Amino acid sequence: MSRSLNLAVIPGDGIGQEVVAQGLKVLSAVLPQDVKLETKEYDLGAKRWHRTGETLPDAELDSLREHDAILLGAIGDPSVPSGVLERGLLLKLRFAFDHYVNLRPSKLFPNTATPLAGRPEIDFVVVREGTEGPYTGNGGSLRTGTPAEVATEVSVNTAYGVERVVRDAFARADARPRKKLTLVHKNNVLVYAGHMWKKIFDQVAREYPAVTTDYLHVDAATIFFVTQPERFDVIVTDNLFGDILTDLAAAVTGGIGLAASGNINPTGEFPSMFEPVHGSAPDIAGTGKADPTATVLSVALLLRHLGHEAEAVRIEDAVAADLADRDGTPRTTDEIGDALAVRVAG
Amino acid sequence: MSRSLNLAVIPGDGIGQEVVAQGLKVLSAVLPQDVKLETKEYDLGAKRWHRTGETLPDAELDSLREHDAILLGAIGDPSVPSGVLERGLLLKLRFAFDHYVNLRPSKLFPNTATPLAGRPEIDFVVVREGTEGPYTGNGGSLRTGTPAEVATEVSVNTAYGVERVVRDAFARADARPRKKLTLVHKNNVLVYAGHMWKKIFDQVAREYPAVTTDYLHVDAATIFFVTQPERFDVIVTDNLFGDILTDLAAAVTGGIGLAASGNINPTGEFPSMFEPVHGSAPDIAGTGKADPTATVLSVALLLRHLGHEAEAVRIEDAVAADLADRDGTPRTTDEIGDALAVRVAG
Ligand SMILES: CC(C)[C@H](C(=O)O)[C@@H](O)C(=O)O
Ligand SMILES: CC(C)[C@H](C(=O)O)[C@@H](O)C(=O)O
Repeated sequence: MSRSLNLAVIPGDGIGQEVVAQGLKVLSAVLPQDVKLETKEYDLGAKRWHRTGETLPDAELDSLREHDAILLGAIGDPSVPSGVLERGLLLKLRFAFDHYVNLRPSKLFPNTATPLAGRPEIDFVVVREGTEGPYTGNGGSLRTGTPAEVATEVSVNTAYGVERVVRDAFARADARPRKKLTLVHKNNVLVYAGHMWKKIFDQVAREYPAVTTDYLHVDAATIFFVTQPERFDVIVTDNLFGDILTDLAAAVTGGIGLAASGNINPTGEFPSMFEPVHGSAPDIAGTGKADPTATVLSVALLLRHLGHEAEAVRIEDAVAADLADRDGTPRTTDEIGDALAVRVAG
Repeated sequence: MSRSLNLAVIPGDGIGQEVVAQGLKVLSAVLPQDVKLETKEYDLGAKRWHRTGETLPDAELDSLREHDAILLGAIGDPSVPSGVLERGLLLKLRFAFDHYVNLRPSKLFPNTATPLAGRPEIDFVVVREGTEGPYTGNGGSLRTGTPAEVATEVSVNTAYGVERVVRDAFARADARPRKKLTLVHKNNVLVYAGHMWKKIFDQVAREYPAVTTDYLHVDAATIFFVTQPERFDVIVTDNLFGDILTDLAAAVTGGIGLAASGNINPTGEFPSMFEPVHGSAPDIAGTGKADPTATVLSVALLLRHLGHEAEAVRIEDAVAADLADRDGTPRTTDEIGDALAVRVAG
């Protein structure tokens, strides 16, 4: 456990700034006195792009690399063409820092709204591959803009990349009480990638005899997310399927206002990055309506990753208690942040 | 409207045979006396593959082509390696017969179970592209089975293919009372294919000023499927996203026991094919537990496609009435088929 925390902060766009402020507030409140917190803010996102045309200059990337971890708010604005900031900034960070484990826990806390009747017990973790699949940016367009255009997107999958994330998921499943791991893919159609995933999954499974395994096609998985979410414990899946499934998971566990994520480089060679699953929500930016809870829970993941387990648990307990006490009275972003800061300190 | 109906029937695997029998029963009961129904059954699926190693021989394909339409039960069995029958039979039919409109209506009937609290009004249609995207079978594997394996899947998208399905979706939206069309893609990451889809969508939109349009990323769309499904009217999307979204749509509208689909070749050059969205469910095959309603509703889509609108409506009304009368008493596949046949005849 390090006694200093040198954090890079990328507030980003829209509500990013507001939620990150609350994340930092709670982080300061929870950290033991003797842990020195240093933060450096990076001006990246839509405003920077409009001003300079830059998304993520190499010098910034080098500087970001020097930190213990990165806290990110949200990236994206309607004024920027779709894909520019996503590919040029957010995904560039995930790829450059080899965030091959995109960790997304889903838990239905008591007293939070779920669209599901009967309030099933939901407590699972999606381990989404973060550096391969259809996200590699491979692909192109021929005769662009003509009636004869052909556009391709190439999903690139390597045994190297699949094995390391599958191993990570097995280790996580093995450490949980239920010890169950579900592979989600679409190997009846995407036979090349799907069969490789399945083969590697089955191989690694032999090293974890205590872990119960299961396979689901991605389409069938969405059914179980709404009809039997309690059947899931840990899920491992490709980058795109993980993107889709974790938004659905957030929706059934109280909304993306509560969904946290970690973009993790398990080797520690590069800083890991923690961010709420939600977007920049420009429609409510500046109104104080954004719920900072997802960012605060992302801070808990950050602390856990850096070895501050007790502090991570304090934050998670504070969030659970705060949610349990909610009675529908509207609170501002700031008020929720304050309440959580008081709880973790108390 | 043709006064004869020359139907190819592919019962397929698992519960396929059982549900198709009910579909044919209801079809016979609803057809006017003067429409001559001829059916020819094709022995395709797992058993055939085990016996002969064939999935879909050219001679069968030629023969199937001579029919007005195809009714398919379900394809797939655990005894066959994943992908063999899907790619070699089901997808081969969709591609060979240029089924570029994969039509999947979703409606929450009264008195049917939905996992969603509050029973939102759900009545939308997904127009899933059926002949392109990640389903083309492009891709491959290098150094297969070694730690250095690379597996790729190529999503192929053409302006030709996208425009025709987008046009079909606009025409469908324009013909519905709410006249709303939502494009679902992931154009912030899959920028080549996604931007082409969006550009063509916006172009065709100009020809349909009465249709309200909307765009959603696929991950966000899954959220709205469970939190605000009433916002959707017609959705147009790529082959893989459509696969995922329509299973989720089925789950929130009473389950895949009720979800019908049409694989449509709108030009009429090839026979269109109608099938329930559910799979072969080998676990319940032969038990009489399969609900044939999805197949019966697929028969309604078949009749509508062939110009028998009144008969299609009679089937849909019969299903609605049958569902409204269900009181939880279990009925066999056959009993449900009988009840529906009586209703459409009456
Ligand atoms: C903004 C977008 C590029 C991103 C993704 O697709 O990964 C987001 O949806 C997420 O899940 O973090
Ligand atoms: C069986 C499979 C190939 C098929 C698909 O992916 O299209 C099925 O899931 C469907 O939705 O009809």
